[in-house]
Amino acid sequence: MQAETVSVAEWLFAQPALNLTVSENATEWDNTVALIELMVPGKAEVLTYLNSNGSAPLRYAHVVVDHRATTEPYLADLLVGPLPIRNGTTRYEPLTYPYTKSAGGRVRNLDADSETMSAWFYNISASIEDITQELWGGTATGADEDTLDLWGIDPPWQDDGRIIRWTAFWNLPTSDFDVETLLPLGLYFKADVTGRDPTGWSVEGWFYNGIFYSTTDEFRSAFYSPGFVKLPPNEDGLWGQTGQRGPVPPLDTAYPPTMVAPSGPRFFVDEQQQYVKWMDFEFYLGFSRDIGLSLHDIKYKGQRIIYELSLQEAIAHYAGQDPMQSGTAYLDSFYGFGPYAFELVKGYDCPPHATYLNSSFYVRETTHTHTDSICLFEMDAPYPMQRHSTGSYVSAAQNVYFTVRTVNTVGNYDYMFSYEFYMDGTIDVNVRASGYIQAAYFANNHDYGYQIHSALSGSMHDHVLNYKIDFDILGTANTMIATTLVPVSETYPWSGGKPRNTMKLVRETVASEDNSRLLWGANGATQYTIVNTDQPNRHGEPRGYRILPSLGTAHLTVQDSSNVVNAANWATHDIYVTRQKDSEPRAAHPYNSQDVFDPPIDFAKFFDGESLLQEDLVVWVNLGMHHVPHTGDLPNTVFTTSHNGVQIMPLNYLEGDPSMESVQQVKIEYKAGEVGEVETYGQPESSCQAEWWGYKGDSVVRKFPYAPGEVYYETEDAG
Amino acid sequence: MQAETVSVAEWLFAQPALNLTVSENATEWDNTVALIELMVPGKAEVLTYLNSNGSAPLRYAHVVVDHRATTEPYLADLLVGPLPIRNGTTRYEPLTYPYTKSAGGRVRNLDADSETMSAWFYNISASIEDITQELWGGTATGADEDTLDLWGIDPPWQDDGRIIRWTAFWNLPTSDFDVETLLPLGLYFKADVTGRDPTGWSVEGWFYNGIFYSTTDEFRSAFYSPGFVKLPPNEDGLWGQTGQRGPVPPLDTAYPPTMVAPSGPRFFVDEQQQYVKWMDFEFYLGFSRDIGLSLHDIKYKGQRIIYELSLQEAIAHYAGQDPMQSGTAYLDSFYGFGPYAFELVKGYDCPPHATYLNSSFYVRETTHTHTDSICLFEMDAPYPMQRHSTGSYVSAAQNVYFTVRTVNTVGNYDYMFSYEFYMDGTIDVNVRASGYIQAAYFANNHDYGYQIHSALSGSMHDHVLNYKIDFDILGTANTMIATTLVPVSETYPWSGGKPRNTMKLVRETVASEDNSRLLWGANGATQYTIVNTDQPNRHGEPRGYRILPSLGTAHLTVQDSSNVVNAANWATHDIYVTRQKDSEPRAAHPYNSQDVFDPPIDFAKFFDGESLLQEDLVVWVNLGMHHVPHTGDLPNTVFTTSHNGVQIMPLNYLEGDPSMESVQQVKIEYKAGEVGEVETYGQPESSCQAEWWGYKGDSVVRKFPYAPGEVYYETEDAG
Repeated sequence: MQAETVSVAEWLFAQPALNLTVSENATEWDNTVALIELMVPGKAEVLTYLNSNGSAPLRYAHVVVDHRATTEPYLADLLVGPLPIRNGTTRYEPLTYPYTKSAGGRVRNLDADSETMSAWFYNISASIEDITQELWGGTATGADEDTLDLWGIDPPWQDDGRIIRWTAFWNLPTSDFDVETLLPLGLYFKADVTGRDPTGWSVEGWFYNGIFYSTTDEFRSAFYSPGFVKLPPNEDGLWGQTGQRGPVPPLDTAYPPTMVAPSGPRFFVDEQQQYVKWMDFEFYLGFSRDIGLSLHDIKYKGQRIIYELSLQEAIAHYAGQDPMQSGTAYLDSFYGFGPYAFELVKGYDCPPHATYLNSSFYVRETTHTHTDSICLFEMDAPYPMQRHSTGSYVSAAQNVYFTVRTVNTVGNYDYMFSYEFYMDGTIDVNVRASGYIQAAYFANNHDYGYQIHSALSGSMHDHVLNYKIDFDILGTANTMIATTLVPVSETYPWSGGKPRNTMKLVRETVASEDNSRLLWGANGATQYTIVNTDQPNRHGEPRGYRILPSLGTAHLTVQDSSNVVNAANWATHDIYVTRQKDSEPRAAHPYNSQDVFDPPIDFAKFFDGESLLQEDLVVWVNLGMHHVPHTGDLPNTVFTTSHNGVQIMPLNYLEGDPSMESVQQVKIEYKAGEVGEVETYGQPESSCQAEWWGYKGDSVVRKFPYAPGEVYYETEDAG
Repeated sequence: MQAETVSVAEWLFAQPALNLTVSENATEWDNTVALIELMVPGKAEVLTYLNSNGSAPLRYAHVVVDHRATTEPYLADLLVGPLPIRNGTTRYEPLTYPYTKSAGGRVRNLDADSETMSAWFYNISASIEDITQELWGGTATGADEDTLDLWGIDPPWQDDGRIIRWTAFWNLPTSDFDVETLLPLGLYFKADVTGRDPTGWSVEGWFYNGIFYSTTDEFRSAFYSPGFVKLPPNEDGLWGQTGQRGPVPPLDTAYPPTMVAPSGPRFFVDEQQQYVKWMDFEFYLGFSRDIGLSLHDIKYKGQRIIYELSLQEAIAHYAGQDPMQSGTAYLDSFYGFGPYAFELVKGYDCPPHATYLNSSFYVRETTHTHTDSICLFEMDAPYPMQRHSTGSYVSAAQNVYFTVRTVNTVGNYDYMFSYEFYMDGTIDVNVRASGYIQAAYFANNHDYGYQIHSALSGSMHDHVLNYKIDFDILGTANTMIATTLVPVSETYPWSGGKPRNTMKLVRETVASEDNSRLLWGANGATQYTIVNTDQPNRHGEPRGYRILPSLGTAHLTVQDSSNVVNAANWATHDIYVTRQKDSEPRAAHPYNSQDVFDPPIDFAKFFDGESLLQEDLVVWVNLGMHHVPHTGDLPNTVFTTSHNGVQIMPLNYLEGDPSMESVQQVKIEYKAGEVGEVETYGQPESSCQAEWWGYKGDSVVRKFPYAPGEVYYETEDAG
């Protein structure tokens, strides 16, 4: 793989028409290679290979070239291949088929002049140095001694053919903590930065404490007028820094409980093949710049259930009274998840007994490797898989599950992505968010957040994360069934002619892409299942997997967002179904933010009325978190409540619960305070086994007539 | 306590007017004592005692007398006291103030003649012995050699002044497994059992395979007619039994991971006082027949936040084409949770290092003690409390939490109740359900369930469990605020006159009991918080606790249920707020099922328009599960997906996240592949610490020009 990347890089740099410059030598007016990755082959080819021992699909590279040696800079997706490189055979061509954008395979680059623009912005902030000194005792000039920083909206406004950027002032941290997003200062300026010629760029106004000033002079004049209200800054301090502080809670310094794995890993990992097998689950891992970790060809009991399970995109959509917060709607794959899969903290991010894998990604003619950035581990859940008590026996089954995890810190936020596999055949996909919030300046922001520190508002925002689940339930011919519990008033043959208020099930198929943008629905009444209607079980019920939310919140609050326009049309509902197409491999493109009206991938265009009955289906599901930060989010957001997930659960897929295949079960029979038999089904001896022989049931003391000395035991529970 | 119960029992039996008989000697026409428990004193008295070192409230016993020595049998709630018993001072009186029922303090007993009725039912089933033999090769006659059982609807129909009971035939298990609820046979008979005189009782019809027969003769005649369709029985077998079966998954016989507690318990339990303290949380445990475990006087950092946290009731509401399933809506406190808090299975129900407590309850002049039926333990969550990565450091905090747990198996279902406490001040209240489903006979039941075995339908049902949370946030003057994220189109001073599609917060108080029956709302957009508006924090935000669902489903699907009528009016919404009153201590009464039109406690009557602004508030919150059983629920329902919870989370309650007080944190500084400093904040040494010194960040290999030998490390992440 390393050699292949090298060969593609060398070949690209040998193509004169691409006019490439090595990144470290490139100016803003040179073309560079932004990405070299393996192109994911088409599903049909892959299935032929996997299912029928067909030949392996031809290898191609997916390359992104950053074309800046032009007045209209653009990012171009290219297909390079076939590989290995052979001069004469290997060609490059625009990669267009996976994208919905009219232009196809290319999108303008609004960041081509980021260095020039940064300097231009510093000129503007330096032009009010007198004011920044007066307000905050510091400057933002681009110099080392600056104590202030500039940082603006994302994506920029793209209306009416203009590119408008609002830029905010922030205090720089004075500690080594990553606290800048907690230090807004409440001053913003608007600039029209359309085109590549800085002489055509202009400052279009200032905003401070609820008042818009249309020129710098107007703002300065107001600032020096009597009665101008100067507001306090947000400043770095212990309040924004992690680390122990305050009184240590009782017994906190003693060893807390910890998980140990006496037999070591009970799963198999082939690092070379990125293949993982745990119990009856097996799958392959993928990793890419845009989306980080992905799972492929997930088989359960030897049968594929999911062809691909992968994050597609994450949005963090803010709102506020100020243009910075209001204008912020990060689309994180622009930055990429892959580059931010940092090395995990052993014992904290993953339990002490976890196994670790590395991940790699291409950037600027280098391959970066994040050591130990993916972890795999089993856990004994703090509750059994199932249990049942009676007056004569109790049975219980252990709930050991397997997790694959990676953490991606995209800027201020840390996303912890977990894929959990359970003995009952369930897969739980979940994400937790921690890290620093991006906060707002407090003035006038009451309708958009709680005030959480002296001059800080916990800027309200939605996180929505989209996942692709390409189900293949007993083949690719699948159907989604929505089963809804509905209240009804119904008269029965036995009800004496009287209607009874009760409920029933309504089963509906999601027939076509005309009605396949779905919500979880009120009171969780609707259950979505992907089934193969041609493969009923022996009771006539179609075998399938159900998709259910672990939490209820999922999609974007904002409707028709002015920030993202068509760039996040995957965030409008909770769950979507489309027909699988190699031309629709991803719900979003990393450069969707560069042209929000006509983005490279407009997810809404996937919905073109095709039938979804017994077709190869892809489910796109959103995990969402509405976040209205409060004081408890300082210094960092806690994982306890900031999480969401979706479960993929077998439904009439097998005969009975497969977790009963495990030996990790016990049945204790008891009677009259004595244990009869303890069944341990061949599980290894544990520290609890001796205690099982002491199981008693309930002891009884007679109160009237009182007989305190005669404790006896019930033979069946009295109730 | 033991002696006190004895003294009350002796005193009661000495009151001639009560005309009591000891249970084991009682016939259906004798009065017995159904319950002796300590009466919970009024909140005002308790607060005086707790807050102001006032005198302890007077002790009273809550007694239930089962009055059967009458043609109109009834259950009477009595107050006996003050205690200790002193002849001349101690009196008994009807306990009426906590109940809404017009009659007050008493409700008819529909089960007074259960033994006579059982025999009468067996006469009916014996009268068709020829048919049961023909259909299922067995009898239901009440004899030991019966292979069939009878068991009917709950509550009985109570319309038009008549008491109607539908009774179903079930196969008895042939194994020692508790599998009967999986063995319905599809035949049902209707009986009018109004009054105490069996000669006035009558069979009113039969139902089999979708056809109603109005007399036994009609049914028999049809049965022996040509063309009568005989359907197969459900029979006990491996499919319905727990225990290992099938191929053992790979590596399953090796030791799975397990939790250990190297320092032992890091919490304090006073068994005598039933007092528990973990970190900055402390509270008292209560236990009663009706509702089992409850928590009282929950303090966080020395300040009461919750006066009472307790289960109120659980309903399991079924539906189906047959009168048995359609007529089933168990109200579990009728049976009581306390009597079914079975001894826990060590290592399965609770981790190996858990601490256990006993629980006791009164029944039939005895005190039953369930040994080790409450467990308490700390767990290290499989994810940190918070974490953040940058290109120069990574920080993380451990997430150790504390659980109090009990399992109540009410008949076929096992409810695992957990109360979890977190270092960030969050309390998580959750319930998981396992055990045997109550299944339906399969014929014609397609609209009410999946067919899950040869003649079995997984009868659809809702579980709804109501909890009382009596919040006291910085005193008893509290207000609920509903904060909703709403999409808006808004023009700002800086938006150039253009409206922007964005969102904002709408804060509303829940002003009175006229509008305090609430839903979680679509897309989780509404956040409910209990605050003290007179106690803002230093930023002006009211300090409080938020209540949020862990899962979305919460209330009953059925509207105006014909089964429960007014007996479960607490199950119609997701969350309710009322003004605290000693006359409204419970959302339900254990005998609500005995008079569903006018039950002892009709929760709807709590809502009488009182102001809820800065009043002592009680929140009643529902945890719900819609259950449409599938093959994976055989033999037992798995906990993986069958659970629900609610989190109680500090919101602007403290300055910053209190979990930062813990020493269980780490900060690793790194640069260019070398660790700079590792801060461990005084936490005890762990096996991972050596590994933290090996933290590297990402390594880089140059691809063009290719330099495979020169691996270097980034000083800041490249992205």
